[in-house]
Amino acid sequence: MKKFLDENFLLKNKTAELLYHDYAKSMPIIDYHNHLIPEQMANDINFENLSQVWLYGDHYKWRAMRTNGVNERFCTGDADDYAKFEQWAKTVPYTLRNPLYHWTHLELQRYFNIHQILNGDSAKQIYSTCNELLQTPDYSVKGLLGKMNVKVICTTDDPVDNLCHHQKMAIEKNNTPFHVFPAFRPDKAMNVDDAISFNQYLSQLEIAADVSISSFDDYLKALKLRHDYFAANNCTVSDHGLEEIYAEDYTEEEIKLYFNKIRSGNQLTLSENRKFKSAMLVILAEWDWEKGWIQQYHLGAIRNNNSRMMKLLGPDTGWDSIGDFSQARALAKFLNKLDTNNKLTKTIIYNLNPADNELMATMIGNFNDGSVAGKVQWGSGWWFLDQKDGMTKQLNALSNMGLLSRFVGMLTDSRSFLSYPRHEYFRRILCNLFGEEIENGELPNDIAWTGKVIQDICFNNAADYFSWNKIIEPAKEMVV
Amino acid sequence: MKKFLDENFLLKNKTAELLYHDYAKSMPIIDYHNHLIPEQMANDINFENLSQVWLYGDHYKWRAMRTNGVNERFCTGDADDYAKFEQWAKTVPYTLRNPLYHWTHLELQRYFNIHQILNGDSAKQIYSTCNELLQTPDYSVKGLLGKMNVKVICTTDDPVDNLCHHQKMAIEKNNTPFHVFPAFRPDKAMNVDDAISFNQYLSQLEIAADVSISSFDDYLKALKLRHDYFAANNCTVSDHGLEEIYAEDYTEEEIKLYFNKIRSGNQLTLSENRKFKSAMLVILAEWDWEKGWIQQYHLGAIRNNNSRMMKLLGPDTGWDSIGDFSQARALAKFLNKLDTNNKLTKTIIYNLNPADNELMATMIGNFNDGSVAGKVQWGSGWWFLDQKDGMTKQLNALSNMGLLSRFVGMLTDSRSFLSYPRHEYFRRILCNLFGEEIENGELPNDIAWTGKVIQDICFNNAADYFSWNKIIEPAKEMVV
Amino acid sequence: MKKFLDENFLLKNKTAELLYHDYAKSMPIIDYHNHLIPEQMANDINFENLSQVWLYGDHYKWRAMRTNGVNERFCTGDADDYAKFEQWAKTVPYTLRNPLYHWTHLELQRYFNIHQILNGDSAKQIYSTCNELLQTPDYSVKGLLGKMNVKVICTTDDPVDNLCHHQKMAIEKNNTPFHVFPAFRPDKAMNVDDAISFNQYLSQLEIAADVSISSFDDYLKALKLRHDYFAANNCTVSDHGLEEIYAEDYTEEEIKLYFNKIRSGNQLTLSENRKFKSAMLVILAEWDWEKGWIQQYHLGAIRNNNSRMMKLLGPDTGWDSIGDFSQARALAKFLNKLDTNNKLTKTIIYNLNPADNELMATMIGNFNDGSVAGKVQWGSGWWFLDQKDGMTKQLNALSNMGLLSRFVGMLTDSRSFLSYPRHEYFRRILCNLFGEEIENGELPNDIAWTGKVIQDICFNNAADYFSWNKIIEPAKEMVV
Repeated sequence: MKKFLDENFLLKNKTAELLYHDYAKSMPIIDYHNHLIPEQMANDINFENLSQVWLYGDHYKWRAMRTNGVNERFCTGDADDYAKFEQWAKTVPYTLRNPLYHWTHLELQRYFNIHQILNGDSAKQIYSTCNELLQTPDYSVKGLLGKMNVKVICTTDDPVDNLCHHQKMAIEKNNTPFHVFPAFRPDKAMNVDDAISFNQYLSQLEIAADVSISSFDDYLKALKLRHDYFAANNCTVSDHGLEEIYAEDYTEEEIKLYFNKIRSGNQLTLSENRKFKSAMLVILAEWDWEKGWIQQYHLGAIRNNNSRMMKLLGPDTGWDSIGDFSQARALAKFLNKLDTNNKLTKTIIYNLNPADNELMATMIGNFNDGSVAGKVQWGSGWWFLDQKDGMTKQLNALSNMGLLSRFVGMLTDSRSFLSYPRHEYFRRILCNLFGEEIENGELPNDIAWTGKVIQDICFNNAADYFSWNKIIEPAKEMVV
Repeated sequence: MKKFLDENFLLKNKTAELLYHDYAKSMPIIDYHNHLIPEQMANDINFENLSQVWLYGDHYKWRAMRTNGVNERFCTGDADDYAKFEQWAKTVPYTLRNPLYHWTHLELQRYFNIHQILNGDSAKQIYSTCNELLQTPDYSVKGLLGKMNVKVICTTDDPVDNLCHHQKMAIEKNNTPFHVFPAFRPDKAMNVDDAISFNQYLSQLEIAADVSISSFDDYLKALKLRHDYFAANNCTVSDHGLEEIYAEDYTEEEIKLYFNKIRSGNQLTLSENRKFKSAMLVILAEWDWEKGWIQQYHLGAIRNNNSRMMKLLGPDTGWDSIGDFSQARALAKFLNKLDTNNKLTKTIIYNLNPADNELMATMIGNFNDGSVAGKVQWGSGWWFLDQKDGMTKQLNALSNMGLLSRFVGMLTDSRSFLSYPRHEYFRRILCNLFGEEIENGELPNDIAWTGKVIQDICFNNAADYFSWNKIIEPAKEMVV
Repeated sequence: MKKFLDENFLLKNKTAELLYHDYAKSMPIIDYHNHLIPEQMANDINFENLSQVWLYGDHYKWRAMRTNGVNERFCTGDADDYAKFEQWAKTVPYTLRNPLYHWTHLELQRYFNIHQILNGDSAKQIYSTCNELLQTPDYSVKGLLGKMNVKVICTTDDPVDNLCHHQKMAIEKNNTPFHVFPAFRPDKAMNVDDAISFNQYLSQLEIAADVSISSFDDYLKALKLRHDYFAANNCTVSDHGLEEIYAEDYTEEEIKLYFNKIRSGNQLTLSENRKFKSAMLVILAEWDWEKGWIQQYHLGAIRNNNSRMMKLLGPDTGWDSIGDFSQARALAKFLNKLDTNNKLTKTIIYNLNPADNELMATMIGNFNDGSVAGKVQWGSGWWFLDQKDGMTKQLNALSNMGLLSRFVGMLTDSRSFLSYPRHEYFRRILCNLFGEEIENGELPNDIAWTGKVIQDICFNNAADYFSWNKIIEPAKEMVV
């Protein structure tokens, strides 16, 4: 009987333990995609209490609470912070076998050195202990990230964002043990589903780019200026959140017409909508290629399924799920179009429906042409898949159909400063997979090489891929 | 080397054994969806022989026999009962690793205390032993169910059914240790694929409801009367068997027109057909909500694929398989429509294609709004998925993406009185999952809490969800 | 700690070891579908070096090398053979957890008795050792196949092929310990995607069949003559490589029109294209049925996704991946159409997307009507799925939803004479599955019966299914 969540958590044999403790554990973290709030980092704030740092904005926890019969008042509503925390604490025992159960206790251990189980009984004491610590300098936002040995963070930013917080952090870099870079996420900029919202967005874009937008060319000019602006602010990464890749055939003339149509307040038809998005995906990808950026595509979520709650709470509040969109043909067509013109930059593709795992694992191989090791990547288990089974399936499919050794590895994709133990979680699972196969005789007992491969996946591959090995000390020296 | 099918079958460690034997095993059974024949229960019949109770109507066994090269004469044909049994017995050794192999021997053990392997050699003796027992009062239908500690049974009934057998059982309740309730399954009532069959059905409905049907309103009136009639006969559960949810946009006028069209003997176009079904699904769901019923949707089967055999044998004779229909968008749209009008009743969704598991596990979360714990449920592994791998994957996906602890658990969905050990099968798998993670240190060694969660999944959650805790003694007192 | 790739590789317990070593290991091999080159067998050539026998034509290895950042020059380009080999050797350590890692070392062991790990350091020595052996008579093509105990080989041949190499081998049969048969693969013959290519193909067909083709009837006549010609050359197997089954409704008149349209150089519309293919699939399947052939369908690949590389290198060079086509409805419709006319011959269906595994495993059951044991088969894990996880999932789904015991088992589908240890790989996985369940008490400890079932899957079922038990000595006598 192994102790719950002890130092060998998820490590099922001696080789796995060795690989984790001697190779993986001490590697720094590159978190190349997340949803942290730049302002909170720039101001290095201390959170008032555990609810604010842990529950605010965490739709994973809200979903669990709602499924457990907890009233919305305690999730996103006006209940006081402790009342919310208490409801969460009472829900935790009902999350057995859900990743929240692991994450919760891993986070309490790693950040607060609390080894108790959170439940209704322990809620009050844990809340008070954490709140006290959260007021200390060590528990400021930078303190929290520092504890986790984070070296690079990429946030997710809208093209119209002025990046002032990133600028502040760039200037004050000396005081921070890590880099924070923006990432260009033009979802709203190409979302022509609703004419009113799109035109409202264009107004923001006009101001941000200082360009009056009356034609498609103006629109591209303004958007390109923002792309340049992001580049000038150390951005080298873009990201898209899409149900599916749009890869319809279109002509430039058509797209200009559609732009004029929606710009004058008319809704596009479904076919026009898809063509417009198809065009924009190509244009944006070409800009990414011109600048040598890395582009990311998050595919497969079906969002805002509950209109009643969407009206009350807005997006990203826990009403999204996994879709079953057709992915292969359009994805192949899109990547091929870029590749044919020699304009395919480094690319990471994430899928939300695990039924598409093998499709994705093999799709990337079609565009890995030997020019760069691991040029097109299949991203780590994402969102609902960011748990033991989801990660394991992604790692296995990637291993079987591609080169795991060239994988750029884990990212948090999180909205919380307390989510960094997910990297540890990933590393333990990774080491266990290798450890089991070594002990089974399915891999040679070559710890040095396996350890190197693991360190690459944990850190070095991402440092190389994103070209951040120039700005951070080489990881190898950091190994214990 | 563990003995085949011993008392610790499927339990791979001491904690799993403890959880099963001390917590799960003695919980009574709520079988909230099956296809048992009410008349056989009402008359508490004894089956003549093992073939009649075990092979008649069991398309799982027929499929295995056919795949094994057994002539149809021995499946559904005119061979005598022993000849059929013998062919089945000879097929059993070829079912190694198929759930039939486990079910067969589990059923022989639990009902008949036979611990032999069934094959051509043992066929005769086993047949004769079982047949003898089947003539005794303990082996009447009620006796068989009583052995299994069944407390509630829901059959599957057509709206035109007069429910006379349920009425008889309700009157004679004192003599029965369990409740038998009808469930409203209006598949035929909304199936407008074929004008002739639909109109034939409407004739039956006219008689059952004593309403002349010449308009859509008449049709709804008649159907609603049957819904009321079912409610008056203790029905609180509805069920649909569909390839996919239909959620097309429509107007009331359109639907009325389509009804008139088919009512006058014309076929609907595909688009009209889908709109009609879309409308009916909403109307029926609103009735379910008005009465506080629980509604179930079985999605994803592609049925009657073999026309030659369909003509010979009719539906449900083993020629159905798993389809790959698009499920996410329409399912979300349908549930959202009901939720938007605050008319979404408690709902259980079952999927047949395991590629949709994660889609389903996350879809239910979109409509769990905190009003009731586990309001929208993802049903247990169904039909082809009702086996170790299928159940395990369902339990794991539900655990990772929802709250396993709030799951209403297992049901047989069976046509046979000998299928109840499937509940035991499910419970062993469930206990083993928890046991393994406790021993691995992935869960705390808190047997009391884990045992409570297991008992909830085995019985208490369903008792609460269906509000049957009022009519049956509390389960906790039944625990050994 | 088990030694890497020792004699008990992949066998995790004593029962698995027993089953493999005493039952599976010595069974001969029937490789009923592969892409070996008949000319090389007919001439019994010796390869010049390890690169030529191992790397030439192996798109699996090329994909891995490209993903590892190796320039195309060393994959398919003009680098010299050793330079290519060295790049492959340096890539091998990066293939940890990919089946290439296992296959590579298994092939070095089984054919060359080399137990070293291949990497940059060992490259030179291994290359030279293997090259020396490759010049000896034992390492001719027939020698290599003989080492593996191969009894039957089916190649993959175009209808216009003159089969001269097969004829030569048929005549010289006495000198060969195995049979080599052609298989009829009419992919090009029914591929009407491009009018120019199709007409070019028809010119070849005119010559091969000595029929002038100006109408659909001529075309069928010519194709049928080739079908007959293949039959006269001992062909009993056909095969199709398709994204999906086409099963559109059509009339003969339509198909004739479409043929005339494309024959006069016009492109078909998408709908015409699909109807034409639908018709051809039925016609070809009826010919297969008339002759009692076994037909195979490989479904689900999305091919030639990288046009840039397609132009440079042509098809089958590593730019294909897994698609997500809808499979169930059309597959059911097609098989049903044949079955309805009593013209469904023995059929094997392979799928490339593992998300369709359960769909396939249940689809075959719809047409297993008891006439022949295992009449419709679901083929072994194929291409990207031809590895431990892929095979295991296929075996488990087949076990759970069909009869594993009636499975015709493994085939290489390979382009390399060194791929035969994949049969061993499959057998080890198979034995391990049975062994684990016996040790767990999930199956009875009946080694004789389980061993028989395993031998059937390894050899006897295929010998029966393809009716080759008449031409090869009974396998049972070959068991050690």
